[in-house]
Amino acid sequence: MERDSHTTKTSGDVITCRAAVAWTTNAPLSVEEVTVDPPKACEVRVKIISSGICGTDNHILEGKMETPFPVILGHEGAGIVESIGQGVTTVKPGDKVLMFPLPECRECIYCLHPKGNFCKKQNILSPTGLMLDGTSRFTCRGKKIYHLQGTSTFTEYTVVDEIAVAKINDRAPMDTVCIISCEVSTGFGAVFNTAQVTPGSTCVVFGLGGIGSAIVMACKASGASRIIRVDTDEQKFPRARALGVTDCLNPKKLEKPVQKVVKEMTGVGVDFAFEAIGLIETMVSALKSCNRSSGVCVIMGVAPTGSQLSFDPVLLLPGRTLKSSVLGGYKTRDDIPKLVTDYVQKFNIEPLITHRLPFPEINEGFKLLREGKCIRCVLSMRP
Amino acid sequence: MERDSHTTKTSGDVITCRAAVAWTTNAPLSVEEVTVDPPKACEVRVKIISSGICGTDNHILEGKMETPFPVILGHEGAGIVESIGQGVTTVKPGDKVLMFPLPECRECIYCLHPKGNFCKKQNILSPTGLMLDGTSRFTCRGKKIYHLQGTSTFTEYTVVDEIAVAKINDRAPMDTVCIISCEVSTGFGAVFNTAQVTPGSTCVVFGLGGIGSAIVMACKASGASRIIRVDTDEQKFPRARALGVTDCLNPKKLEKPVQKVVKEMTGVGVDFAFEAIGLIETMVSALKSCNRSSGVCVIMGVAPTGSQLSFDPVLLLPGRTLKSSVLGGYKTRDDIPKLVTDYVQKFNIEPLITHRLPFPEINEGFKLLREGKCIRCVLSMRP
Repeated sequence: MERDSHTTKTSGDVITCRAAVAWTTNAPLSVEEVTVDPPKACEVRVKIISSGICGTDNHILEGKMETPFPVILGHEGAGIVESIGQGVTTVKPGDKVLMFPLPECRECIYCLHPKGNFCKKQNILSPTGLMLDGTSRFTCRGKKIYHLQGTSTFTEYTVVDEIAVAKINDRAPMDTVCIISCEVSTGFGAVFNTAQVTPGSTCVVFGLGGIGSAIVMACKASGASRIIRVDTDEQKFPRARALGVTDCLNPKKLEKPVQKVVKEMTGVGVDFAFEAIGLIETMVSALKSCNRSSGVCVIMGVAPTGSQLSFDPVLLLPGRTLKSSVLGGYKTRDDIPKLVTDYVQKFNIEPLITHRLPFPEINEGFKLLREGKCIRCVLSMRP
Repeated sequence: MERDSHTTKTSGDVITCRAAVAWTTNAPLSVEEVTVDPPKACEVRVKIISSGICGTDNHILEGKMETPFPVILGHEGAGIVESIGQGVTTVKPGDKVLMFPLPECRECIYCLHPKGNFCKKQNILSPTGLMLDGTSRFTCRGKKIYHLQGTSTFTEYTVVDEIAVAKINDRAPMDTVCIISCEVSTGFGAVFNTAQVTPGSTCVVFGLGGIGSAIVMACKASGASRIIRVDTDEQKFPRARALGVTDCLNPKKLEKPVQKVVKEMTGVGVDFAFEAIGLIETMVSALKSCNRSSGVCVIMGVAPTGSQLSFDPVLLLPGRTLKSSVLGGYKTRDDIPKLVTDYVQKFNIEPLITHRLPFPEINEGFKLLREGKCIRCVLSMRP
């Protein structure tokens, strides 16, 4: 395999390369030299080509979601297999791959079930920060560095378990396809799998970030007749309209609760409501925004650890549904490579990427995210 | 039309007959003489043949759900059309009919939508206690008596809006079919429409009353491989097993939360959980009892007015669904008569009726319900 001579050194099977280390919460990432151990059995070492910065990475950095520190963040990566451990059969060196924060072991009760995708092999809700064998492959300044959600893509090389990586279409453009491993699969799956948006339906989307934007794109592709977006940041409205949003609402400028406005706009409330922020308040607003007889509310935002969602259950009684999903309910290794091929053939997901930065400028990317200036900022690891 | 000479007098078009009047909450019903005005335009007067006593009637009598008093309770009735008002076209005198606490106007946005059934013509969550024209047809001791949910079936004669009544199969046994208008449609619809229970799946049902029992029957008919029932009242267990329950749990006798026991019994939790009690605590237990990757929790119990259901939204994140329905999501006039024909042809719902009483013994029926001694007690209005 080709390696970047200017940053990467090989010593035996250990690779030395650059990675962005999060030593602690609420501090800039530190781009520095790390060593990446070779893959053990059933593991794959990947040269990262591109990686998107997701809101979840920022939530973790801000301490709102728990994972062990110090850690290499990033879970939305595309790359090329550099080497494989013993027993790996589904990918080989040179393959273009995506890595997934949710694995698919193809053996557990959830993987074998026709519905759902929450593979039991790795509980991403109680992260260990380690490979499946209970150890780390990263070292920096002599210290063990934790993995994130079995991926850790803010590095030039990473090691992932075979169950969290899949070969993708050879024609996939590697600078863009990374966002399919989280942003696009989460947003599209929320619409196509979880909500099952129907032609002619009305939709509301709370939040105008990466997931919310992917949701809008999928609602439009599903034939929704009206797509209302709710966000307090009006600088995002023009690009929301460009994606297919028909109405933009800023709840700060409304004289009544946003759900009442949505109800007035649609007569009875929308058919499908999506929450892509992660706040309890907007989750309840989303639930109340959908029509009582058959409205479906899909919560894709992740609330801070320990939050309590609270509402009168009579809201559900007349026929509302409240649901959620991780990575859009896709069985990651089976389904997401198909989504990549679909994208290569017909979907234009380029509008979901508003900014591109070279990897060392990663802190600038987080700044863009926090300030709401980007839908998605993609880092390029190319030299 | 035949009338019961011993109780019923006709004066002009006004009928004088016996009804059970609830003058106030938390008091026995008073069986006494009422007058029933003739049906106005788009209304139907029905001679009640049988009426089930539902938990909701008891909740209202205990003041846990709001409706105006004094009132004639009962919403699960079968009868024969006595007379019709101007413009009524869908039923005629002599027709066997069911009455529904949820109407179907066939004109509103909810009735015209392929999914859902929460007809906008009458909001049963904000009951007026009146006919659609804003008046009552009942008088007792010179006072206006309110209707309940457009039905009021604890009377020998009632008046209902045409949109809340439907002709049923002529072969339907009138002493039994009444329970299809609420108990059976609610329970069967929760399983067939709302949850869509699949063959081989695992189910848990909280509550062993009428709705819970109908749910069990439908889960069995759907091919569920395991049906766990949860109730603190062990006297109900033998008849639960007779309906198809495979495991009975009494949470008072468990050393850990019931959802943990259900999870241990099934490995990961059930595919489908049903709450048919109406308590916040059991709603949360039901949600936690279903498996995190694709479990569906259906809440059929109605919590007291103003209750708050509260849980960490991360419970939903991995793929759980929380939903509910009224009358099982059936479009009442279109779908429930088909359910009657199905019942006549193949379902045996007799086991859902454990007690039968003559109408004047209605307070004994409420006692049986409160003491958990019956699944359903059906009152017979026959002389």
